[in-house]
Amino acid sequence: MTELRQNLITKDWVIIATDRSKRQDEFSQINKHQIVIPSYKKDCPFCLGNEELTGPESFRLNDASGWKVRAVPNKYPALSPEGERVRNINGIFRSLSGVGHHEVIIENPRHDLTTALMDVEDVANIIKVYRQRYSEIRKDRRVQTIMIFKNHGKGAGTSLEHPHSQLAATPVVPYELRVRIQEAMRYFDDMGECLFCRTLAEELAAGERIIFESEHFVAFIPYAALSPFHIWIFPRRHSSSFDEITDEEMLDLAVNLKTVLRKIYVGLNNPDYNYNIRSIPTDEVRTDYFHWYIAIVPRVSLTAGFELGSGMFINTSLPEESAAFLRSVNIESC
Amino acid sequence: MTELRQNLITKDWVIIATDRSKRQDEFSQINKHQIVIPSYKKDCPFCLGNEELTGPESFRLNDASGWKVRAVPNKYPALSPEGERVRNINGIFRSLSGVGHHEVIIENPRHDLTTALMDVEDVANIIKVYRQRYSEIRKDRRVQTIMIFKNHGKGAGTSLEHPHSQLAATPVVPYELRVRIQEAMRYFDDMGECLFCRTLAEELAAGERIIFESEHFVAFIPYAALSPFHIWIFPRRHSSSFDEITDEEMLDLAVNLKTVLRKIYVGLNNPDYNYNIRSIPTDEVRTDYFHWYIAIVPRVSLTAGFELGSGMFINTSLPEESAAFLRSVNIESC
Repeated sequence: MTELRQNLITKDWVIIATDRSKRQDEFSQINKHQIVIPSYKKDCPFCLGNEELTGPESFRLNDASGWKVRAVPNKYPALSPEGERVRNINGIFRSLSGVGHHEVIIENPRHDLTTALMDVEDVANIIKVYRQRYSEIRKDRRVQTIMIFKNHGKGAGTSLEHPHSQLAATPVVPYELRVRIQEAMRYFDDMGECLFCRTLAEELAAGERIIFESEHFVAFIPYAALSPFHIWIFPRRHSSSFDEITDEEMLDLAVNLKTVLRKIYVGLNNPDYNYNIRSIPTDEVRTDYFHWYIAIVPRVSLTAGFELGSGMFINTSLPEESAAFLRSVNIESC
Repeated sequence: MTELRQNLITKDWVIIATDRSKRQDEFSQINKHQIVIPSYKKDCPFCLGNEELTGPESFRLNDASGWKVRAVPNKYPALSPEGERVRNINGIFRSLSGVGHHEVIIENPRHDLTTALMDVEDVANIIKVYRQRYSEIRKDRRVQTIMIFKNHGKGAGTSLEHPHSQLAATPVVPYELRVRIQEAMRYFDDMGECLFCRTLAEELAAGERIIFESEHFVAFIPYAALSPFHIWIFPRRHSSSFDEITDEEMLDLAVNLKTVLRKIYVGLNNPDYNYNIRSIPTDEVRTDYFHWYIAIVPRVSLTAGFELGSGMFINTSLPEESAAFLRSVNIESC
């Protein structure tokens, strides 16, 4: 018999159906990382030397040798920094002007790198730029929510090879986030503690779903993971907003994120993946009940009518086995 | 500038970003419907004559010539009809035994048909079996929600070519459904009317997003469609639970569903799609606030990190243009 598990943070129910399961290593993808990618492409707008191919940059992180990370406007922005936040209500038809920010963060001057293969300092530089852009953009009072996310590979929604991530700052709070915050608030009111801190404590005590621990962060597969290798990285310190991360924590997050992505890269053969940073809306900053975190979703399974029609998920892999597999992956080997 | 639209029923915000838009016919898929599919395959468990290859059938619709539609157990059931509904609570770790039902509805004895190409009577037979299975399974008190859905094509999550759909009956109410019901209830309490009935009335008055009207059903692209050609079919009569559909309404729904799927088939060249029937949980039947409906999602776009990280969507097609395109598709031509 299968088992249903509920994620108390998202309130989602997941069916763990291992009868249709593959062995953990069968989730591994075709040998994409053996395709040789050049370190420079002359028509790539993100490559070193091609800076004039992007729109005007909003931020650049330099060292003595030149730029390390750049933030530039998205070429096809979903949200624009020009204009006012205007809401239109006409019966049930409700709309809002698409004001906000939509930036691309070019993670490295080199075309052929990916987080899993970068130096820790390179990854730390990306996180520094995330924080800088987050802090800067939150000053814009039209913005209510800032999302930072990465699409790696075609199956994860990007056609651009050059390592990059994105920032989208919306003039609304997404309903899903609003609902989760309300649930977290209710848990705090009922129990007097942060549900995320409690989850982290219980996951650490159980141990079997932990992938990697560093000084300030813990990477684990949630008890009710939505899909095989669905990973959460939680800061140990309670903090609601991503931009409260300290310099020391950023360096430690770089170690943690790189380690986890490298384990996926080696263990699952460079699968397509998305990650995103989930942080509190900009109007609320310090709260006792919400805790920012990173979610990583390797694209090793497909959602179908059941998931679309219910918001529930079927995970064909036991989270404890997926975590054991990733713990065992030796990342020195690549 | 882009526009954000809110769907009052799902409360989801969608960014309508037509700057990156394709022409409507560019969403068209490769020429899949020109691949010749045989009408019988000897190893297909769903083909006429191969009935012994499935588990014991739970229902069969016959006419003088033999069976028309069969309901059989899913070979890899996500939920099992054996056992008790047992809930386990251990701190934040909450689980439930996977009791329920997971059936496959074999839509036709022929291997090479698809809803778009069937006779209206064939489609009506499928809907009759949906209703029979729904009514029968709702008697099981362990079941809280019944989902009926279809995955058409590999990109929509099926590898089986033979026309089929599925029924999943879960021992929980999916959180997404619970939240939508609460919102619908609140709307009713505030406004004294069903939000779905109001939506249908306003969509009919606006007209520009309507695809097809039949006597008892209306197919339209919602104002805040999540993706290009995201379609809803609403019954005109207020009714919360799918199994309240009458015989006359079933025949009319067959006409409507077939017409819409044929417009997609012709206009978008047989894209992969999912549809699902959204109905009230089995414990609540007649309510003034909830209204069952069918959602159809052609798989012509990909969700990426932004959608995963926010629950918001970016739709690159203007719903009014998608609807005008589908209205104009001539379905006599194939």
